[in-house]
Amino acid sequence: MDLGTVVGIVLGQVLIVIAMMSGGSLMAFWNFPSVVIVIGGTSSAVLTAFPLPTCLSIGGILKSAFQDNTRPIGDTTAQLQQFAQKVRKEDLLSLENEQIVDPFMARAVRLAVDGVPVDTIRQTLTDEKKTLETRHKAAQDMLAFTGTMGPAFGMIGTLVGLVQMLQALDDPSAIGPAMAVALLTTLYGAMIANCLAIPLAEKLKARTAVEATNMLLVIEGIDSSVKGENVMITKEKLEAFLSPADRGGGEEAAA
Amino acid sequence: MDLGTVVGIVLGQVLIVIAMMSGGSLMAFWNFPSVVIVIGGTSSAVLTAFPLPTCLSIGGILKSAFQDNTRPIGDTTAQLQQFAQKVRKEDLLSLENEQIVDPFMARAVRLAVDGVPVDTIRQTLTDEKKTLETRHKAAQDMLAFTGTMGPAFGMIGTLVGLVQMLQALDDPSAIGPAMAVALLTTLYGAMIANCLAIPLAEKLKARTAVEATNMLLVIEGIDSSVKGENVMITKEKLEAFLSPADRGGGEEAAA
Amino acid sequence: MDLGTVVGIVLGQVLIVIAMMSGGSLMAFWNFPSVVIVIGGTSSAVLTAFPLPTCLSIGGILKSAFQDNTRPIGDTTAQLQQFAQKVRKEDLLSLENEQIVDPFMARAVRLAVDGVPVDTIRQTLTDEKKTLETRHKAAQDMLAFTGTMGPAFGMIGTLVGLVQMLQALDDPSAIGPAMAVALLTTLYGAMIANCLAIPLAEKLKARTAVEATNMLLVIEGIDSSVKGENVMITKEKLEAFLSPADRGGGEEAAA
Amino acid sequence: MDLGTVVGIVLGQVLIVIAMMSGGSLMAFWNFPSVVIVIGGTSSAVLTAFPLPTCLSIGGILKSAFQDNTRPIGDTTAQLQQFAQKVRKEDLLSLENEQIVDPFMARAVRLAVDGVPVDTIRQTLTDEKKTLETRHKAAQDMLAFTGTMGPAFGMIGTLVGLVQMLQALDDPSAIGPAMAVALLTTLYGAMIANCLAIPLAEKLKARTAVEATNMLLVIEGIDSSVKGENVMITKEKLEAFLSPADRGGGEEAAA
Amino acid sequence: MDLGTVVGIVLGQVLIVIAMMSGGSLMAFWNFPSVVIVIGGTSSAVLTAFPLPTCLSIGGILKSAFQDNTRPIGDTTAQLQQFAQKVRKEDLLSLENEQIVDPFMARAVRLAVDGVPVDTIRQTLTDEKKTLETRHKAAQDMLAFTGTMGPAFGMIGTLVGLVQMLQALDDPSAIGPAMAVALLTTLYGAMIANCLAIPLAEKLKARTAVEATNMLLVIEGIDSSVKGENVMITKEKLEAFLSPADRGGGEEAAA
Repeated sequence: MDLGTVVGIVLGQVLIVIAMMSGGSLMAFWNFPSVVIVIGGTSSAVLTAFPLPTCLSIGGILKSAFQDNTRPIGDTTAQLQQFAQKVRKEDLLSLENEQIVDPFMARAVRLAVDGVPVDTIRQTLTDEKKTLETRHKAAQDMLAFTGTMGPAFGMIGTLVGLVQMLQALDDPSAIGPAMAVALLTTLYGAMIANCLAIPLAEKLKARTAVEATNMLLVIEGIDSSVKGENVMITKEKLEAFLSPADRGGGEEAAA
Repeated sequence: MDLGTVVGIVLGQVLIVIAMMSGGSLMAFWNFPSVVIVIGGTSSAVLTAFPLPTCLSIGGILKSAFQDNTRPIGDTTAQLQQFAQKVRKEDLLSLENEQIVDPFMARAVRLAVDGVPVDTIRQTLTDEKKTLETRHKAAQDMLAFTGTMGPAFGMIGTLVGLVQMLQALDDPSAIGPAMAVALLTTLYGAMIANCLAIPLAEKLKARTAVEATNMLLVIEGIDSSVKGENVMITKEKLEAFLSPADRGGGEEAAA
Repeated sequence: MDLGTVVGIVLGQVLIVIAMMSGGSLMAFWNFPSVVIVIGGTSSAVLTAFPLPTCLSIGGILKSAFQDNTRPIGDTTAQLQQFAQKVRKEDLLSLENEQIVDPFMARAVRLAVDGVPVDTIRQTLTDEKKTLETRHKAAQDMLAFTGTMGPAFGMIGTLVGLVQMLQALDDPSAIGPAMAVALLTTLYGAMIANCLAIPLAEKLKARTAVEATNMLLVIEGIDSSVKGENVMITKEKLEAFLSPADRGGGEEAAA
Repeated sequence: MDLGTVVGIVLGQVLIVIAMMSGGSLMAFWNFPSVVIVIGGTSSAVLTAFPLPTCLSIGGILKSAFQDNTRPIGDTTAQLQQFAQKVRKEDLLSLENEQIVDPFMARAVRLAVDGVPVDTIRQTLTDEKKTLETRHKAAQDMLAFTGTMGPAFGMIGTLVGLVQMLQALDDPSAIGPAMAVALLTTLYGAMIANCLAIPLAEKLKARTAVEATNMLLVIEGIDSSVKGENVMITKEKLEAFLSPADRGGGEEAAA
Repeated sequence: MDLGTVVGIVLGQVLIVIAMMSGGSLMAFWNFPSVVIVIGGTSSAVLTAFPLPTCLSIGGILKSAFQDNTRPIGDTTAQLQQFAQKVRKEDLLSLENEQIVDPFMARAVRLAVDGVPVDTIRQTLTDEKKTLETRHKAAQDMLAFTGTMGPAFGMIGTLVGLVQMLQALDDPSAIGPAMAVALLTTLYGAMIANCLAIPLAEKLKARTAVEATNMLLVIEGIDSSVKGENVMITKEKLEAFLSPADRGGGEEAAA
């Protein structure tokens, strides 16, 4: 469970609701047709813009923003250093029986054990890393697109409301409430974009960055093991990708 | 038929029409001169900005947003693995009689069978892939440009209407309707951009990405076959470009 | 004559003028001081921003947006294939007497005939292609900059008008017309940007892209001829840069 | 202590406060609920968007904007030239006893003394430089994101206030003050963005650039020393990264 | 003296002043507190955002926008061709006594005469070129940042003025002038950005581009001389970086 995401989203909404209630009834901010035009319009634009499979994957995408399943970078480094030591003491084939949870690392080790040439391993794993980054980017693009379309359909709704109001200016007392309702779609659009879509797209970007660093570590670590490099050099190479904080942990694991 | 595109566009329009009718007559939102200035102005800007052949290709471009003719990535992978196995069992020339529908794959196989050096094949196919991406990008740019010009001419129309209204403020009862009409061009421009042009440009981008991945697979697969690499290595190389979901299918096909 | 550019610009202006006249006199949209502040201000910003020689080249730049002098890609391909055949049948020196209109192609052939090493030829021609792209980009940047400054000085003019109007609110009947005049600069700025500067910058970009593709074809074609590659391979290499439509013509020429 | 940051921030706030007081009571610009909605909303968006550890590092990030701990480039150059001279006179191992404060330089020297191959040293140090730049970029992105969300939640707050005001237009005398309060959130959002977040993000970017140049100097300097290059060549190589001003100092140190 | 910069800036200001005077007294547009908030606020943001040394270099930066000290590209080419001929006739050392004004060219010649390996020369000079581009980009970024902050503090000032006005709506006759004053900061901000900061940043960019081309010419020319290449090849290589116009001059010089 990613506490930051949950607390952030709940807090943002609660604050806005409190602000709404502070000036009177919360119901003044509820207008069903306005909700339909903004959420429906934004969804229809997303449906037009992205392939159906990408649209339908939205559930899994959001889940990964709320649950952090990315592996700590320190763990990956520690395991790769263990591998390097094992390869040095025994040989490359000794990795065959390792229990490896991470599928990317498992695949890297399998390629190494199968005797695939080191350049092909590096190429194949790098291509796989790029594929994951591209796939994740599509998901982030969909959220970012939602963050653009929300305000756009908010504005369209407000324009519709304004045109309706302007054509019936006879009753001055109705102008205020009519304009208030017209502004609601702009408000909804801004909330969809700034409380949900844009921050979630950003969180997913950070998540992908960690996953990509993990993959980079696997590529460099397995490469170093296959080449039979000194364990110390492997350690130096891997630590170059860690922040000073993460590096501390890696050093303990290697001791 | 790309259901997402069709449903998305229809749904968006229907929702806005319902919102318009909810406040009175739909005719309040119809103004022929406003339609002419926004659609005509946007078209004239596109005509100024893009070469005639690109402008005239708009029909084909839109068709490819509504019809998904891109080949499933799994199919490409499966066929390339068949080729690799056939080349291993027989030889490169055995591919000559294969029935190949995809013209890019057909061209790649022909180059391989003709004995063109492997570097030249890779270079030529990569250049062809870049050419396709550049050509498709021009089409997407034209739609994105439409998405910028729609609101711009909407604003120009509104400014024209405002100036006209402001110079005849004598009759207060006419101000509201005049301003309503002035706002219509802004509304039309926003609809052209956000219901049509921008989402369609995005959909075409996703389509091109699939096509480019297919081409990348062909380049890697044929390269691997020509070099006479192990079938297992070819499989690993190709799967690196697939998402875990697509990969499942590829594994079956290779079994 | 580029019909698209001419028709696009004329059509856009005519539509706006018709819209202006539909609401009364066209003179309501003419205000000489407003014209001066927008056109003068935008010009002064361009003069500040770009070197004098670039500013003075504006005539030639605009001319190339209205006249399409770029060579059809198919012609370049066909001629390069002729060269390749001639070199195969006779030798490289046989190109010396070819009548070549395009100066870039002439230069490429001259370098080849003079016996300059193939790497130097490729490097030199690539540098020349980059130089052209950079020079053309400066012209496009100047137009795009005009497209940014037009609306900016439009807004400055409107602010000046608003401040003047707000300080003399005594006569209510003067407010409307004064505000109408204030809005005119915004309208002029939007027209300069969206009817002229931005679309013309885009058209020049497309023009440069065709010219760059022509140059790329020359580089690859001469490179292939100097290396004495098979005519068929030269053909494949060149066609990789063509769209399927252009390719048809190229095949005929090679037949 | 970075005087520029401190003076800049204080000066900006003071000027705005003076402007506020010039028109009456400063209290007219204080509204607690508005403060809560803008600061709370922006914080919640940041919390949603960035991983908790990044959010919690905000203290350290801000500290580095106010305290300049980056090493002067001239010092790094001078020390690296001393190393080069020592290596020339004695040998690479003579660097083992050097007192080195900068951890990156210390690590580079240690790798060199340990006899790690020169390509691996360069690769490892370059990876570490990239890691630092990526990590710092995340911090700058967080500040830049704050600079986007501040105005966004300012607008949300203003919309909430406008809707409340518009639904209670009965008392004309309340309209002005209500609208004034509604505008306060927009003002707060603009101040958060333009007085704090955006300028601080920019300052951190400049800081990272200096640090990256220092690292680049270490990479080139150690590389040159390990390769046993001429001291004069090392000097030329390092000075290429200095501005003419910094270069003067470096020459003195080398004399 | 760069006439374009001077005329552009003066013309822009004069036009706006004339527009201001056309509607009454110029004093209506002068408000000292508004000047302080916009110029002071923008300066404080720049001070926060950029290191003090960069801020203090603003004088020199602006000077180089008003004075064009960049060397004509044709001169550089001609001199490099003279060098190439001299090296061919005599030898590399013959360049030792050349009087060279441009410090970059002088340094390049010195490295060549000192017998530094050609790869190191190219690397060192390229690094120096990048350093100059980075340093100049910082100056351009500072001006561009000023162009963003000007309007931002203009808006902050207007918001402050609006809030003050809205809380004192009792006297209707005061509303107009109060709002006029509030708008002045927006006007000042727009003028700082569009008459000064943004165009000057653009001019500096063009200046840096010329300087970078000069450096590129020196790198290629010296490289060619050190390698002892044919004078004709040197000429071809250098001319690839020239526009057709500049090239004419170069040919004369080489004749």
